[in-house]
Amino acid sequence: MSGERAYCDWIAVDWGTSHLRAYAIAGDGAVKAEAASQKGMGVLAPEEFEPALLEIIAPWLGDQPMDIMACGMVGSRQGWTEAPYQQAPCKPLDASFAVPQVRDPRLNVRIVPGVKQLSPAADVMRGEETQIAGFLACHPRFDGILCLPGTHTKWVEVSAGEIVSFQTYMTGEMFALLSKQSVLRHSVQTDAWDAEAFADALADTLSRPERLAARLFGLRAGGLVADLTPAQARAQLSGLLIGAELAGARPYWLGRQIALVGAPALTDLYASALKAQGVTPLCEEGAKMTLAGLAAARDSLKEGSK
Amino acid sequence: MSGERAYCDWIAVDWGTSHLRAYAIAGDGAVKAEAASQKGMGVLAPEEFEPALLEIIAPWLGDQPMDIMACGMVGSRQGWTEAPYQQAPCKPLDASFAVPQVRDPRLNVRIVPGVKQLSPAADVMRGEETQIAGFLACHPRFDGILCLPGTHTKWVEVSAGEIVSFQTYMTGEMFALLSKQSVLRHSVQTDAWDAEAFADALADTLSRPERLAARLFGLRAGGLVADLTPAQARAQLSGLLIGAELAGARPYWLGRQIALVGAPALTDLYASALKAQGVTPLCEEGAKMTLAGLAAARDSLKEGSK
Repeated sequence: MSGERAYCDWIAVDWGTSHLRAYAIAGDGAVKAEAASQKGMGVLAPEEFEPALLEIIAPWLGDQPMDIMACGMVGSRQGWTEAPYQQAPCKPLDASFAVPQVRDPRLNVRIVPGVKQLSPAADVMRGEETQIAGFLACHPRFDGILCLPGTHTKWVEVSAGEIVSFQTYMTGEMFALLSKQSVLRHSVQTDAWDAEAFADALADTLSRPERLAARLFGLRAGGLVADLTPAQARAQLSGLLIGAELAGARPYWLGRQIALVGAPALTDLYASALKAQGVTPLCEEGAKMTLAGLAAARDSLKEGSK
Repeated sequence: MSGERAYCDWIAVDWGTSHLRAYAIAGDGAVKAEAASQKGMGVLAPEEFEPALLEIIAPWLGDQPMDIMACGMVGSRQGWTEAPYQQAPCKPLDASFAVPQVRDPRLNVRIVPGVKQLSPAADVMRGEETQIAGFLACHPRFDGILCLPGTHTKWVEVSAGEIVSFQTYMTGEMFALLSKQSVLRHSVQTDAWDAEAFADALADTLSRPERLAARLFGLRAGGLVADLTPAQARAQLSGLLIGAELAGARPYWLGRQIALVGAPALTDLYASALKAQGVTPLCEEGAKMTLAGLAAARDSLKEGSK
């Protein structure tokens, strides 16, 4: 062994069902390098996680143990090692990270636990708790509602640094299923976008959520026998679904301070919808908040070992 | 040629996107034989329809031309021959059947046109118009609402023998997508059924349709961190979706005479939901109504040729 030095100070890992992303972090917190693969939790058996991780981070390792902070579905029961849920109300991170068994002694891996809620309704998150922790690290006095739009959008009430309660909406997954797998797929194939059609459809289901079920098939019929364009149909599909979500989540956002955390294309869409309701949300990028949260997790690890 | 006699008087064909079903009908209207294949419209090129039909009806043909009455997606633009939509308000059947080109001179095929609606909202049907015609042949004085539950459930206002207006709900397709392709698939895999869970979920979205989006992910979370069983989750998924449909279709069914036409398992479900709202619908089996409608179509053909 040559006493080879590591390329970075620690490694942040965002490991979801369908993706694996790793970031080499310098001592000053800067991202020195990124790597990614398609080896998400969904395609890996337990013994395949370590090789999948080494495949993308090996160039960053030296001779000594490296802290690796991971979040997401990697910590689910079907993942590498289960990181049992914390129960809300709770701080988004505590120090009880899960530690998977590894063969390579340089891998000092910690997995952030998800958060579950039993009341008022059963709900779970994995990964978003890290983004919430990152958001609170950047905005320590925030008190209000975080909305994290994505495949499974979360609405989260945050107060005094804790997750008070939360609610999940399958809006992103519904959009993907309906636009790719349902009869509507014939009618929404386009990259174009009609912002007015989005706003109108959203206003309709937000004020009358019972119209969601009634209007979906009209996106197909409108293309067949009227002049509905794919750009209008696609924007309407998105608007109908987000409007129905906002109708359901009204107790969360009405009259509250709101922050959006996610991919900019999505947070822009939600921001435009909320602005039409007189709410002006703060926006933060999801990937940035994940890194900030994993950094907070590593800080808590260092504090815990003092 | 031997002067071979045909096995039946005419042939009824129900030809949808994913199925082909044919019935040999005697002179007295009795079904003498049935045959089916998986060669639905969705898997056939235009030149493949005639062989697919002959494959299952050849044993019923003699030397002479045979009347074959067909309905469903076989008449769509992507089908055998387009049978252009009639426009509602209209009678469910008129005599303008489409006639596909055939090589076998014994095939005297007629395809029933679908029905389109431009106002109050764009909508289309293909196949249901034949069931409606069959229902009206059995109940000639019916005035009220027909509900035809299925992949794409139709609510149809019928008056004076005409389709006045209609509205389509994608409830069946949504249930299939969510129960087989979404994250909920992990939570609803069972053949068991919890009638109470169905009724409770249905009552919830029927009275508060904005709860649909809020409750779907709870079917997954409830199985992970609470004690929700697959039988409860599956029945709740169905109840949430049908409740949201009934909320949207309330202007159709509230205070009206209702008849349900479809597969008994589905019409029973809708009947139980409507009975809980104080509405007692008449039920008819969908396949029987399709045959009655195709018989009415053939009768109109004979009258037209007098």
